[in-house]
Amino acid sequence: MAEEWATFGADLHLDLSGAGRGPGLRAGLMDALREAVRSGRLAAGVRLPSSRSLAADLGIARNTVADAYAELVAEGWLTARQGSGTRVAQRSVPRRPTSGAGARPATPATPSARRARSRPAYDLKPGVPDLASFPRAEWLKASRRALTAAPNEAFGYGDPRGRIELRTVLAEYLARARGVYARPERIVICSGFVHGLRLMAEVLRARKVREVAVESYGLDVHWELLTRVGLRLPALPYDALGTRTEGLAGMKGVGAVLMTAAHQFPRGGALHPDRRVAAIDWARSSGGLVLEDDYDGEFRYDRQPVGALQGLDPERVVYLGTASKSLAPALRLGWMVVPEGLVGEVVAAKGHVDWTGSALDQLTFAEFLGSGAYDRHVRAMRLRYRRRRDELVAAVAAQSPTTRVSGIAAGLHAVLELPPGQEREVVRSAAWQGLAVLGLDRFRHPSVPHTQDGLVVGYATPPDSAWSGTLSALGRVLPA
Amino acid sequence: MAEEWATFGADLHLDLSGAGRGPGLRAGLMDALREAVRSGRLAAGVRLPSSRSLAADLGIARNTVADAYAELVAEGWLTARQGSGTRVAQRSVPRRPTSGAGARPATPATPSARRARSRPAYDLKPGVPDLASFPRAEWLKASRRALTAAPNEAFGYGDPRGRIELRTVLAEYLARARGVYARPERIVICSGFVHGLRLMAEVLRARKVREVAVESYGLDVHWELLTRVGLRLPALPYDALGTRTEGLAGMKGVGAVLMTAAHQFPRGGALHPDRRVAAIDWARSSGGLVLEDDYDGEFRYDRQPVGALQGLDPERVVYLGTASKSLAPALRLGWMVVPEGLVGEVVAAKGHVDWTGSALDQLTFAEFLGSGAYDRHVRAMRLRYRRRRDELVAAVAAQSPTTRVSGIAAGLHAVLELPPGQEREVVRSAAWQGLAVLGLDRFRHPSVPHTQDGLVVGYATPPDSAWSGTLSALGRVLPA
Repeated sequence: MAEEWATFGADLHLDLSGAGRGPGLRAGLMDALREAVRSGRLAAGVRLPSSRSLAADLGIARNTVADAYAELVAEGWLTARQGSGTRVAQRSVPRRPTSGAGARPATPATPSARRARSRPAYDLKPGVPDLASFPRAEWLKASRRALTAAPNEAFGYGDPRGRIELRTVLAEYLARARGVYARPERIVICSGFVHGLRLMAEVLRARKVREVAVESYGLDVHWELLTRVGLRLPALPYDALGTRTEGLAGMKGVGAVLMTAAHQFPRGGALHPDRRVAAIDWARSSGGLVLEDDYDGEFRYDRQPVGALQGLDPERVVYLGTASKSLAPALRLGWMVVPEGLVGEVVAAKGHVDWTGSALDQLTFAEFLGSGAYDRHVRAMRLRYRRRRDELVAAVAAQSPTTRVSGIAAGLHAVLELPPGQEREVVRSAAWQGLAVLGLDRFRHPSVPHTQDGLVVGYATPPDSAWSGTLSALGRVLPA
Repeated sequence: MAEEWATFGADLHLDLSGAGRGPGLRAGLMDALREAVRSGRLAAGVRLPSSRSLAADLGIARNTVADAYAELVAEGWLTARQGSGTRVAQRSVPRRPTSGAGARPATPATPSARRARSRPAYDLKPGVPDLASFPRAEWLKASRRALTAAPNEAFGYGDPRGRIELRTVLAEYLARARGVYARPERIVICSGFVHGLRLMAEVLRARKVREVAVESYGLDVHWELLTRVGLRLPALPYDALGTRTEGLAGMKGVGAVLMTAAHQFPRGGALHPDRRVAAIDWARSSGGLVLEDDYDGEFRYDRQPVGALQGLDPERVVYLGTASKSLAPALRLGWMVVPEGLVGEVVAAKGHVDWTGSALDQLTFAEFLGSGAYDRHVRAMRLRYRRRRDELVAAVAAQSPTTRVSGIAAGLHAVLELPPGQEREVVRSAAWQGLAVLGLDRFRHPSVPHTQDGLVVGYATPPDSAWSGTLSALGRVLPA
């Protein structure tokens, strides 16, 4: 065993060398551990080294190892019992034949892959809507209508911007629901937000942009995507009024800013009107672009959603929307509304080929949207999520008076602000309870100081049957 | 008018500056002309300058202008009459509002965009299957079964390799139909061949590969995609036995080779067995990779298709397949079978996110494939295309004894080899007849000398109603 562990440690080290620092390092460590379990090199029941000693072996921070262990416990790969340490779980993991020493992990774990592969007992990770509510019958109906009505040419190679039928109804919808100035000509269909962001990263690089300002809090996968094409990402400060866009004026060399204006992800605030104007003013005076990530703009529970930033200046804002939160990530359907002069560059970044996913899906979604089924679905989900949020807020108030739910009543997640110094402990004890939940710190930009402990709670995912159990589990781990 | 023309010429020049030389230059000129028509700057009926004088204005070869004119005539943008010169066609082109001087063309024309936008009277361009034969009812049936049976998690973010249900049936199908060594773990679903090639381009660049050998004939969009990420593309010579893969051994610095082994595109030969072995030998001894573009491997009419090259060494060949020719490009469904050790890198190039198109489509295709509907469809199309090819061969033999149909009885296209010096004239007179057809020269790698005049004829696209008219039009332009 000692020798096997040594081999494993060496492999681990190899993988970690590409993982960078910070969240990437933890993810790399988790990948390596998962792969070792999957391949059978770490057999079920085997006791892992303590986080302290593995950290020392690898020359990394002990907390990184402890966090990775906790998360793998939550995912069901490992088990942890007081007194018996951390062990490989007994649940059978299919042993995958590997092709010798040079084989790399077949599936580097992404948030999504992790989710599919294993399931914690309770899941409050943010980012996924209620999958059980996908309107299968209505979608199928739209699909039948679309497929029947489609002209033969719809089965060929399409316009790289996407089907005109979809762009036409989207233009109408986005104007009505989100105040977006959208003409079909300037809409580009993409495979969800990440694809759109990637296209913009290429456009920006081709324009010799070197820096894109980001918010203090966000998603590391987005940052990594931008970093990978060589962009630097200075962060704007965040306060009670939202992201301090005034700061843009002093940032020389920044060519664009990525923002979640309607509902900051994950902090949960709506950008203050003055800050909205400041962002647009900066873009106008500097010639920069605002990339508006409107990921959940449909879901506001206390009032009409604030219109998109894009409406203020369609020539300076690239609006990015998605069906991933409002319908389902599996559709891989997103849309960009881009300044007129940028359409050609975005299409070029797409490689002049429409790999935006199936034209049939686009026609189906056009039907779904045009028939009013989308509006009905969004209304139903709004009621559902609002109820969930209300129940979450009530449960937290009842069980943890020192915890504060922050942010506007919107979207699919809430931030639970914890007393200073509590976050790491709460996340870990949640993992021990089989409750998957993410700390706020995980979403913090590396350059921004830690000022707030908290949890980012996604309340859309748990099935109805698990919801009250999930709230109880949460109550048990929050500070009294 | 003179002044407007001058303005137009200036814009033209701007666009052309980015277009490079060769085929890119003609494409850039065509884009600029289309944009001028679309925006109304060139009104219907306006007479264009002669190809000679425009070529002189722009400082480019007269033939480039003449070719661009001919192709735009075939596409319906321009008309050409003996004695009255080339004019903007009268057919109404929707006038798109442009936002001032800085606006770029909203849609740089891709082959696909061009196809959607305008239609020549007869179309023999290669690359698109018979769109009217898309099995709508069967597809819808598969879609209903898939959507009904899908677990809730299928609507979430998925495995970046694609749905396991699809990878499982594909593995079985590819082994059976194409002799591919395919386990689900090493299959990665992608959005068609171009997406797969792009992923491989990123993987190769990350591995510090600088050169990818290509065949003497191929598609410029593929070459451009590889060139754009910084790869150099030396070409292998081509002869009667196919691509001379023996040449790889002498090409220092080449890290991969892109090949259409089963049916060279567009020349139409099958790679000789010795050449297949030479490619694999090279890959083994050099550590290089073979990228096998198996675009139409299902369609062979004279015998069982030769198995994929990949079967010879699954650890050295990346197999790329697509539903674009066998079903429809609009599905944007492709698959890669990659060496075990490469899966992680391909997934990383995907950005760790499954933007391979909708999981619902993947499930639908899995149903379609698993139920035998795909086999039935392929069989039906094989009969249809075979008949088309036979009729083409007969028509050519009857009407143009000096023209020779070359290549194996397979796929959706044939090469008509013309007597020396005839190609350009035949393509031009075809354009005058409203017959869209491409010359072989267009597919020639820039570094390869012109040795053969010919046409690349796609016989799958014309609807039944237009087929005999198309053959007659072809007969009129071929040399007697």
